[in-house]
Amino acid sequence: MKLYDYLPSGNGFKVRLLLSWLGQAYEYQEVDIQVGETHTPEFLALNPSGQIPLLVLDDGRPLAESNAILFYLALGSAYLPGDAFAQAEVLRWMFFEQYKHEPAIAVARFIEIYAPQRKKELPALMKRGYFALDVMEQHLKSNAYFVGDSLTIADISLYGYTHVAEQGGFDLKPYKAIKNWLKRVNSHPNYIKITKTPD
Amino acid sequence: MKLYDYLPSGNGFKVRLLLSWLGQAYEYQEVDIQVGETHTPEFLALNPSGQIPLLVLDDGRPLAESNAILFYLALGSAYLPGDAFAQAEVLRWMFFEQYKHEPAIAVARFIEIYAPQRKKELPALMKRGYFALDVMEQHLKSNAYFVGDSLTIADISLYGYTHVAEQGGFDLKPYKAIKNWLKRVNSHPNYIKITKTPD
Repeated sequence: MKLYDYLPSGNGFKVRLLLSWLGQAYEYQEVDIQVGETHTPEFLALNPSGQIPLLVLDDGRPLAESNAILFYLALGSAYLPGDAFAQAEVLRWMFFEQYKHEPAIAVARFIEIYAPQRKKELPALMKRGYFALDVMEQHLKSNAYFVGDSLTIADISLYGYTHVAEQGGFDLKPYKAIKNWLKRVNSHPNYIKITKTPD
Repeated sequence: MKLYDYLPSGNGFKVRLLLSWLGQAYEYQEVDIQVGETHTPEFLALNPSGQIPLLVLDDGRPLAESNAILFYLALGSAYLPGDAFAQAEVLRWMFFEQYKHEPAIAVARFIEIYAPQRKKELPALMKRGYFALDVMEQHLKSNAYFVGDSLTIADISLYGYTHVAEQGGFDLKPYKAIKNWLKRVNSHPNYIKITKTPD
């Protein structure tokens, strides 16, 4: 399978991290979102949403959306429970990530690193991002993981941008439960860094 | 089971529509989001994100996020394929809905109906919403449904706010494939309107 991705992307990193945990080989194709490579006719034919990450199976079928890719890759593995309600809880946290967390924390990070001309958006983004972190902290005060008693793709999904939230200007010091959870995720034996180009 | 919901919500309507299609009985609890009823201590104990819809099972377990609720309720039914890749494609469109579609189209509708003081946000929301509609139109030009050859929860998810997009100021006239698809969804024998209070 082939992964179209952009190294600094937390959404792409989620998929790379799961592939590493699963020991799954894949071809890595860098796409530079900064110069419009996700909006060429060729790329839009694979993903009309014009976004990375995009997974293309060996038979050519494309799959977009980082969390849908995580679900597909994790099915049948230890990282997605088989129980129906537990699967729905995993999705509950992944939809929370894409609606409440990523649009605030990932966008603040993007502005800090690449788009200083958009800094006036930051106060509203910080407020939304801290709300998402508060929801996570409250859950993690009494739970080691987001769903059940072990790592799932819900943890990977929320780890993607939380572990680089400080690059977006968020102060994680008061979030003790989140900081302990980040350590639980990154102590997985097959952990890789977001900066590591796949082989 | 008990559904906490707010009648005008497209996110809540998705769940009501699926429950009607499934012929599933449930208790309906109206929660007025306009007066802060999703941010009381009692409600936040059930859903720390402070949002409807929220489903509470008979054993008391709460499940948040409209699309996670759809997934849970549809598992094993005709509205969620059993095939792994098809399930991932359903999720692909539901994540698209929550990331690209709802934050533009639902928010524009909210501003038009309830929050005229926020009208300066509309031009950016219209641009994003039309992009989402363009992606849908392109897909529906060569597909009757979002995944496979019959209705799934991906269709319900995208129907929720598309069918009321004109209340947000969007002109659907040029979107012929979307308009034909809307008719395919609302010709289901168990279709209900968003304005119909559950029994």
